Amino acid sequence: MNALKKLQNANSIGNFICVGLDTDIKKIPPHLLGENNPIVEFNKQIIDATKDRVAAYKINLAFYECYGINGLKNLEDTIKLIPSDVITIADGKRGDIGNTSKMHAQSFYEHYNFDCSTLNPLMGKDSLEPFLDYSDKLNFILVLTSNPGSKDFQNEELKNGVKLFQHTLNKIREWDKSKNCGIVFGATKLNELLENLHLIENLPILIPGIGAQGGNLEDLVKILFESQKKSFLVNVSRGIIYKSNNVDFAEQAAAELTNLNNIISANKK
Amino acid sequence: MNALKKLQNANSIGNFICVGLDTDIKKIPPHLLGENNPIVEFNKQIIDATKDRVAAYKINLAFYECYGINGLKNLEDTIKLIPSDVITIADGKRGDIGNTSKMHAQSFYEHYNFDCSTLNPLMGKDSLEPFLDYSDKLNFILVLTSNPGSKDFQNEELKNGVKLFQHTLNKIREWDKSKNCGIVFGATKLNELLENLHLIENLPILIPGIGAQGGNLEDLVKILFESQKKSFLVNVSRGIIYKSNNVDFAEQAAAELTNLNNIISANKK
Repeated sequence: MNALKKLQNANSIGNFICVGLDTDIKKIPPHLLGENNPIVEFNKQIIDATKDRVAAYKINLAFYECYGINGLKNLEDTIKLIPSDVITIADGKRGDIGNTSKMHAQSFYEHYNFDCSTLNPLMGKDSLEPFLDYSDKLNFILVLTSNPGSKDFQNEELKNGVKLFQHTLNKIREWDKSKNCGIVFGATKLNELLENLHLIENLPILIPGIGAQGGNLEDLVKILFESQKKSFLVNVSRGIIYKSNNVDFAEQAAAELTNLNNIISANKK
Repeated sequence: MNALKKLQNANSIGNFICVGLDTDIKKIPPHLLGENNPIVEFNKQIIDATKDRVAAYKINLAFYECYGINGLKNLEDTIKLIPSDVITIADGKRGDIGNTSKMHAQSFYEHYNFDCSTLNPLMGKDSLEPFLDYSDKLNFILVLTSNPGSKDFQNEELKNGVKLFQHTLNKIREWDKSKNCGIVFGATKLNELLENLHLIENLPILIPGIGAQGGNLEDLVKILFESQKKSFLVNVSRGIIYKSNNVDFAEQAAAELTNLNNIISANKK
């Protein structure tokens, strides 16, 4: 099934949360450290406890790549645990000259068979094209990120009066010939989200920044539901997977997911 | 030895070329395909033939990551072949929120022990800080890239009259407290290089875009030597490693390296 259709299906049954598997050996419950493979065991229990009520899992590649070969083994084992109707996102924020981006796209979309990836647009159109050539995938391109440093470049005003992130939005709509572009927009930037819904149009949105980074879920979904037509994913990583550091961590993660789902459904029009 | 010192040593003995190990199984000489490990064997022969007259090897991570675990094994085996006095660059163009960039930095600078990496600044200061915290490494930050898409964002003019890439240069100088920042500036943008030497000051420069991408080496080094104070690396990937597709590929790569070194020394003041 193509990635956009998977997203629409998930949203249609009320699933909007993307669980970020930023799994860090230093943060997982200590009782797992004696397991043969603590990271995969942690992910397995999180996935088992949440898979029926999530829209997506976002795998933060840095947390796997940092262990080299063993890390990639964990990545491969984790992907296998995710049911096929749940969206998988390779969160790597890639973007490079064409022949290099082609290798990245092959890696994410063929070798690992992810549904989506996150991309950095700074190097321009030809740096993203190898990803956009996969018409059945969904490419979430950075527009306005949730971190403090987003002000350094993304919020700079251009000569023609638009901000850089608005210019990025205009470019993405221009590039979206195969309807396989989406955007990354931080939950810490709700004023900007509200003011730019007309530029976002119906581009699917991946929204990080809820929880540890300070974004408010209720305010966020009110804006998105009022605009009616949006497909979106709200990413929560640390706020779900590290909700508890005890043997009940997976149960507590599922409870927090339910809590977040309830906040969302209470605000749905 | 710290990375900047390695670069200064290399430049002081006339070594400015960085060989890009963008090793692609589809492009290496057919006679190697019967080897136990064609990619590592190719890299081994290229490194053996060139190591005495290069300044650096740049490893384009995408070309290794695209094969998953086997690719990382090739990466590890390749790194081991590079002499310790030659600079190693992890070319991954990373940049993410702080806790994620920290993982990338650990991966490149601790797990693989690279001397340098290439970074994408779009997410701002806090996305680069975990890399800048390694004071003995050198961080080459994208300023103006060699590809056509560099015009989409990097060349945009800001309200205050400076272009985005100039704004990036200003930010990098501001962030360079530990003197471990460098920049990436495309050899296809020589007018911009000449006009912005005053903003670059003495930031070390990694320059891709010679050869397959159309940049001219002689014109480039004339500009850099006239400015006198610059530490720099000129990256050549395809133009060296795929100079020949026959059994003499390593010999031909070395001959091309000599040719490029001669062009450089002929223009040295």
